[in-house]
Formats: sequence, structure tokens, C-alpha cells
Amino acid sequence: MRNLHDHKSALGINTATFGYRSPIEATIDLCASRGVGALTPWASELKGGNIAAVARRIQAANMAVPALCRSEYLTAGNAESREKAVAANCRMLDMAAELGAQSLVMVVGGLAENSRNLEQSRAHALKGLEQLLPHARDVGVNLALEPLHPMTTADRSCLNTISQAVDWCELLDPDGAGGIGIAVDVYHVWWDPALEASIAGAGGRGRILGFHVSDWLQDTRDLVLDRGMMGDGVIDVRGIRGMVEDGGFAGCVDVEIFSAERWWKTSESETLDMCLERLLSMC
Amino acid sequence: MRNLHDHKSALGINTATFGYRSPIEATIDLCASRGVGALTPWASELKGGNIAAVARRIQAANMAVPALCRSEYLTAGNAESREKAVAANCRMLDMAAELGAQSLVMVVGGLAENSRNLEQSRAHALKGLEQLLPHARDVGVNLALEPLHPMTTADRSCLNTISQAVDWCELLDPDGAGGIGIAVDVYHVWWDPALEASIAGAGGRGRILGFHVSDWLQDTRDLVLDRGMMGDGVIDVRGIRGMVEDGGFAGCVDVEIFSAERWWKTSESETLDMCLERLLSMC
Repeated sequence: MRNLHDHKSALGINTATFGYRSPIEATIDLCASRGVGALTPWASELKGGNIAAVARRIQAANMAVPALCRSEYLTAGNAESREKAVAANCRMLDMAAELGAQSLVMVVGGLAENSRNLEQSRAHALKGLEQLLPHARDVGVNLALEPLHPMTTADRSCLNTISQAVDWCELLDPDGAGGIGIAVDVYHVWWDPALEASIAGAGGRGRILGFHVSDWLQDTRDLVLDRGMMGDGVIDVRGIRGMVEDGGFAGCVDVEIFSAERWWKTSESETLDMCLERLLSMC
Repeated sequence: MRNLHDHKSALGINTATFGYRSPIEATIDLCASRGVGALTPWASELKGGNIAAVARRIQAANMAVPALCRSEYLTAGNAESREKAVAANCRMLDMAAELGAQSLVMVVGGLAENSRNLEQSRAHALKGLEQLLPHARDVGVNLALEPLHPMTTADRSCLNTISQAVDWCELLDPDGAGGIGIAVDVYHVWWDPALEASIAGAGGRGRILGFHVSDWLQDTRDLVLDRGMMGDGVIDVRGIRGMVEDGGFAGCVDVEIFSAERWWKTSESETLDMCLERLLSMC
């Protein structure tokens, strides 16, 4: 397991952690000023802007771009909407390529509207990924499937465990040609009784493309926007990092904290300083 | 799969559905007046009362008692507290026996206080169950392990999937002598990609002891008290009932709805009527 003090280029920040308050250029400059090694932006921050210029600004600050966040949902109830989502995700892959991002984070969508057929929504998500994979390979951007916590199954993601994500990768890329893998976010997977085994399975197939950190607060009040700073909750973040690194992962440790009431109300520089401190002391 | 119209004795109510507003005697009489087939009370409703009299009242109304809710947590950080919890659960088993309940619902507890060692809390829960099993067998009350939704791992249950519960049953009762099994609650398990396979595994070993229904609301606002009436959310309750019945389960279908803002603010008789209607139309 790496000592992050000796791998500061592995210290990454997902811009969601700041609550989308400043233009991406200001966020880049702030992160660059603290020696952050990697930045993961959101597409909403880039739309309508000069993506090539943003890419140059990040590169000039010696920061990597592990991923672009994130896909459009693939699970709409009607075929036309699903085709539109695939097209939108192709454009998102192009944007990721222009940005120099290694992956596009795939949040696949929850149950279709007015549906109780979870198996069907999962089949639709899988089909959409199958349609996207050739384009992802063409533009050199990986599809990073992110299993989301089971409390998001209805409305955000019907992909909910690492084991399920591994199964999907094997279905879509049985020969291990690549272009598809998994983003492991401790917040979404820490509870899983099969965590260690499924991370080992993913690692054994070279499938781990990203690693996101935050914390589960004991007194969680919101299903989306109440994540904690690493160390403020109950997740053994370092233990899980050990698992993914034992599985061969050598990429960035990206802080991604959705925190409407706490960190999004703290100044961005203070939040960033705390992220860097806790990355080194708690992750 | 049973047609519940022909099995009205299988229509069960967990008293939590009413929000604990009336004395247990009134709840029994209300349910009896509507022909409810089974009642699952909470220990808090019985403490200090005449349990034998409550048991007679339920029996006189021709209602079964599938279970008593519920255990004390088994995952405290220090050994003395864990021993106290085992003793308290032994008394709870005695209470269940006096009530004529078939099972005691085991909610095993979340992470120990100030701990990030989930594996250790799980080991403690397993050890506590091991200590309880002989007494459960002595008094003829089954331990019904209830896997709770992964959003409860920190504070209520580190037992989170049916597959994990099956593993625990096999560890504790490798010969299938009985006295231990699983309560399947659709709210906690509906999201599980391995649901059908793990229910089949549990059924194949005769482990399914209880079946609880409610619904996951698309717009869930609280991690505990925002469950929906069957049919108001996204769970394919009937599909899951088919799985447990294919697995050999022939017991009651028990409604258990924690709903601080909706059903606990509706009159008990109106809530009950809706439960019975939806049991027949949606479950």
C-alpha cells in the first residue's frame, strides 16, 4: 500500500466537493496553489465554455484528470429517450477526450419512471453501455461504471454493488480488451459484506479505474447531500484503499463530498485544506 | 404462488404500522374486527403488562403471532455490554414464548460506537447469536435474522443482505437443526442484484421465517421513518412474494410501515383498511 506522503500526485479533488460555487478556472487555480495532483470536473462546469482552454489550464498546473463527471442516465422507459441518452453520452465522451480525462464516470440511472421492473432497467443500462463502449474506445476514454449505494436504486442507479459491476464488465468486455472498468467510491460500497472479495475480483481483472473518498456520517440526514469529510464518519477509508491497491490500483485518491449543510457552506480554500490534511491522515 | 384472497389468515399486521399510538389491547381489537390473520407486536408495547392476557386476547381473536419485534443490539464495543445484551435478548425470547410468538426478530445492531471496524462488529453480532441459539431452542422461539438496508449499517444493522444472513445461519446451524432463519423485508432487500438467487438459497435450506411488506417511495426523505404503503412506491412486492413462496415460505405477509409523516398521522382504522386493500391488490 502506498504512503500518500510520498505520492502527492495521487491526491485528487472532485470539484463537487466545493459545491459548484466558482467557475472551473478559479477551482483549477485554487487546487494548483495547494499542489493538488488531480482534478475531476463536472460536465455542467464545462458546458458552453472553451474545453481546450480548461484542459490546457489543468495541464499547465501539472494536474491529471482521472475522470469527467458524469454520464446521463441510461434507463428511461421508452426507447427513444434511451437512444437520446446514448447520443448525449457519446458527446460526453467527446468532451472527456477533449479535456484529457482518462474516464467518464457512468452513473447509469435508477428505475424507469413509473416502473417496478428493476431487472428491465438494469437490462436497459447494460444495453446502453454496450452501445457506448465502441465510441469510448474510439476516443480513448474509459467507461468507469460507478456502483451507487442501494439507497439510490429507485432514482439514480440500479447498479449497486462492485460484484454487479464486475459482472457487467465481463459481459461487455469478456476478453478484457479494456475501455470499461469500475469506479470504487467508499461511500457507496463500504457496507458490502462481499467488499473485499469483490474488490479482489475487480482487481484481478484489472477493472479498477477510480477510487473516491468521503465518509458516512453516523447521523446521516439526507440520502444524497450529507456526506462527511474523511475521518468524521465511520468508514475505514484506509482499509478500503488497501484493498483497491492490493487489487493493483495505482491511480488517484479523489475526494468527492456532497455536503449541502457543512462543506458547501465552508470557504473553498478551507474545505480544500481539510481535504488534503485528511487525505494524508485518514485515507 | 398463493392467491391471498383464498388465504386471508395470511394477512398480517405489524403494530409499528400504527405508530404505537394505542395500547396493544385496542390494536388487537381493531385488527380482530377486520379479520386480520396475524399480529406482530413490539416488546415496548408489552413491557410491564400482562403478557399472558395479551396472548389470550390475540388467540381468542384467531390471530397468529408470527414474531415479536425485536432484539436488542448485539454489537456494543465492550464485552460487558454485549453480555448484557445477550441476557436482555434471552428475556425477550422468554417474552416471545409467553406471547406464543413463532420468532423473535433479530436486528443485530450497527457498528460499535466510535468504531470503524465493521468486520469486528459483524463478528460480535454472530457471537451473540451463537450464545442465544440454545435458549431460543429451549423456549421454542426461532431467531429470525432480519437483514436491514445498507443505509442502516452504521447505526442499526451490520447484517445487510439475505446472502449474508444465509451464511450466518449456516455457520450457526450447519446441520439445519433449526431455531434460526431469516425475516425477508422487501423494503430492506428489494434493490439486491442477487435477490432471487439468495432467496432461493435461503428457501432451499428452509430458512425463510418471515416476510414483511411496505414500499420504497421514489421521493424518500428519511432513512428510517418514510416507508410507503404497498403500491405507493417502486417495489415489486408481488414479485418478491413469488420468490419467497417459491422458496417454500407459507407463512404470513406482514405489513410493517414506519411512516412518521403519513400513515402515523392517519387514523389507525383507515390505515388498517388501506393495508388490507393493498395486501390483496398489490402484494
